[in-house]
Amino acid sequence: MATPCCSFKLHSSLGRARQGELCLPHGVVPTPAFMPVGTRGTVRGVSPAELSEIGTSMVLSNTYHLWVRPGHTLIQELGGLHKFMGWEGPILTDSGGFQVFSLKEHTKVTEKGVRFRSPHDGQFRQMTPEVSVAVQEALGVDIAMAFDECLEWPATRDRAASSMQRTTRWLQRCIDARRHPEKTALFGIVQGGVYPDLRSEHAAEVTDLQLDGYAIGGLSVGEDADDRRAMVEVSEKCLPVDKVRYLMGVGHPIDIFEAVCAGIDLFDCVLPTRAGRHGQAYTSVGKLNIRNARFTADGEPLDPACACMACSTFSRAYLRHLVKSDELLGARLLSLHNLAFYQALMARLRTAIRAGDQAELGAIGRMAARSSCSPGQ
Amino acid sequence: MATPCCSFKLHSSLGRARQGELCLPHGVVPTPAFMPVGTRGTVRGVSPAELSEIGTSMVLSNTYHLWVRPGHTLIQELGGLHKFMGWEGPILTDSGGFQVFSLKEHTKVTEKGVRFRSPHDGQFRQMTPEVSVAVQEALGVDIAMAFDECLEWPATRDRAASSMQRTTRWLQRCIDARRHPEKTALFGIVQGGVYPDLRSEHAAEVTDLQLDGYAIGGLSVGEDADDRRAMVEVSEKCLPVDKVRYLMGVGHPIDIFEAVCAGIDLFDCVLPTRAGRHGQAYTSVGKLNIRNARFTADGEPLDPACACMACSTFSRAYLRHLVKSDELLGARLLSLHNLAFYQALMARLRTAIRAGDQAELGAIGRMAARSSCSPGQ
Repeated sequence: MATPCCSFKLHSSLGRARQGELCLPHGVVPTPAFMPVGTRGTVRGVSPAELSEIGTSMVLSNTYHLWVRPGHTLIQELGGLHKFMGWEGPILTDSGGFQVFSLKEHTKVTEKGVRFRSPHDGQFRQMTPEVSVAVQEALGVDIAMAFDECLEWPATRDRAASSMQRTTRWLQRCIDARRHPEKTALFGIVQGGVYPDLRSEHAAEVTDLQLDGYAIGGLSVGEDADDRRAMVEVSEKCLPVDKVRYLMGVGHPIDIFEAVCAGIDLFDCVLPTRAGRHGQAYTSVGKLNIRNARFTADGEPLDPACACMACSTFSRAYLRHLVKSDELLGARLLSLHNLAFYQALMARLRTAIRAGDQAELGAIGRMAARSSCSPGQ
Repeated sequence: MATPCCSFKLHSSLGRARQGELCLPHGVVPTPAFMPVGTRGTVRGVSPAELSEIGTSMVLSNTYHLWVRPGHTLIQELGGLHKFMGWEGPILTDSGGFQVFSLKEHTKVTEKGVRFRSPHDGQFRQMTPEVSVAVQEALGVDIAMAFDECLEWPATRDRAASSMQRTTRWLQRCIDARRHPEKTALFGIVQGGVYPDLRSEHAAEVTDLQLDGYAIGGLSVGEDADDRRAMVEVSEKCLPVDKVRYLMGVGHPIDIFEAVCAGIDLFDCVLPTRAGRHGQAYTSVGKLNIRNARFTADGEPLDPACACMACSTFSRAYLRHLVKSDELLGARLLSLHNLAFYQALMARLRTAIRAGDQAELGAIGRMAARSSCSPGQ
């Protein structure tokens, strides 16, 4: 299938780490890149202009949530998701699979798709590969993710194998359902649980289908970090060099650093915004819980190494006051800072890889490790 | 007492309406002016830079809330309230009277002041004129409000008279308690319930004390709009022409318009931010409840006549989606718009008064009336 709307150029490598450029209908994404999560068509508490200012090139939104409310048809009538949410850059949508599989109580999975009762209006709905692709194309996003079966964790090898086979059949249906490949790229997802041979087998199957990019899915669901690392490694080895690689839903700064060093290009995670709403900040001096009493009279910026609006305007003492007082501005500023921290990490990684600077890469790794745990841990 | 830190220059009048300039240590406030309310040292959901962008010159914060948490001493140690909240322009603080008088169950009022049990930590605290002035001077605000007795509503004439007399005694104690008149101005408050003769009598008593400015208090507490208008009128007539006049806690756009036409210069009100958090928008086409189904597919801006970030970036349909989904960005954008609407109203009033344009003043009045009620009402 012709895929004129998405191309990936590899600029430099350092070890397995890659620096490149993903060209999409709404702009260019320098990689490695982190996508802030805007589940319902908004990155919680942060404006599109602020996302741009901190160096965001692409955001992620969610097919399931927008399909249920306000509806993809409405968004399409209003000119598409970019216009609706006021974001002019590239958008990738998750397929909705993860969400419908999470609605455990009311869900029935068949070969056709997933039937469930909507928690919003009590109506039965069915999500299928065809529906997922149609919704994503109606939203007009740059990248649609294939609708896959989300394997529960833990799962036996047999269960992982049969689920993976269904995911391949559904991927073929996603491909057949495409109507606008010139506007919306389609990425396939490598599954296979925590079984290395299944991962290799599935990566080969998925890449045979010649998609615009490839994701590694089904991780960060409860497995050991060592298992996750092994699955990333074995999957990555089977992916073509000339296509972008996306590790879904990962993770802490150190997890992202490790995955970049293992050859991954694209990331998304709710952590920076979710942690921000709960008063937690990723910083160059560690992960800080701003509610902690030790920040009561701390006049320093949240992260002395950060140039974001929160760090350049306010003290830790003030941010603590906002969060302790449940003020909207607290959640907003911590979310903004955490996203700025992630974007600065990605920018620094890109520069180091481009420069072939192994020492700098090491320094980034130490900083990422430090930022992912509380001081003293 | 010398009052070098606050001066008011009257530039123009149109009927009783006045246009002037209030000069304060942290800047100049063109009047008539509206102060957004930042109770806990933050205007809910809106950043200081955004407040500046929409034309805010002064904000209001609250002595009681900051005294209880995080404490005025801490804020003073960190360089004062301006630095703490990242707002470089003038700040006025309410005295805390209204808040401690609202803590009905645990409050004991004596001639000394108000003793109450703090809802935060269960400790007994006493707010007095001396404490209120000391806290406000420690915060380093431009304008401190005198600590007055907040009269319950309804109240008999006898009760209103005795309360008013106590307020005068407390005002004298506030004056005596000042230590930094060169940094923090003090405004007196005219009380007297809904009794015109008491209002006149109290205005004469308060203005005899030669303060930096005068407020009209104890209104918007449940009385008829006609009573309020009458009290503003009778109080205003007794206030000196060369001092600024502040009507506390008022109100809807039409209330502000009417009070400007009655000679008032300064306003504050929680309505624009509170209404914004509840999905209500003041606009040139009426007060809109953005949750209303008729906005579901409305691609127009919230207010076609408004240039704020919310109106220039997003549609009503998107804002409705945000508010219906309880997204932080919804409360943030509607609060920002409502404040921008109020600031644009004040700017337009200033221009009309300066130009002596009675026809434009009439047009502003019709717009203010329209914006204060829902279309169809």
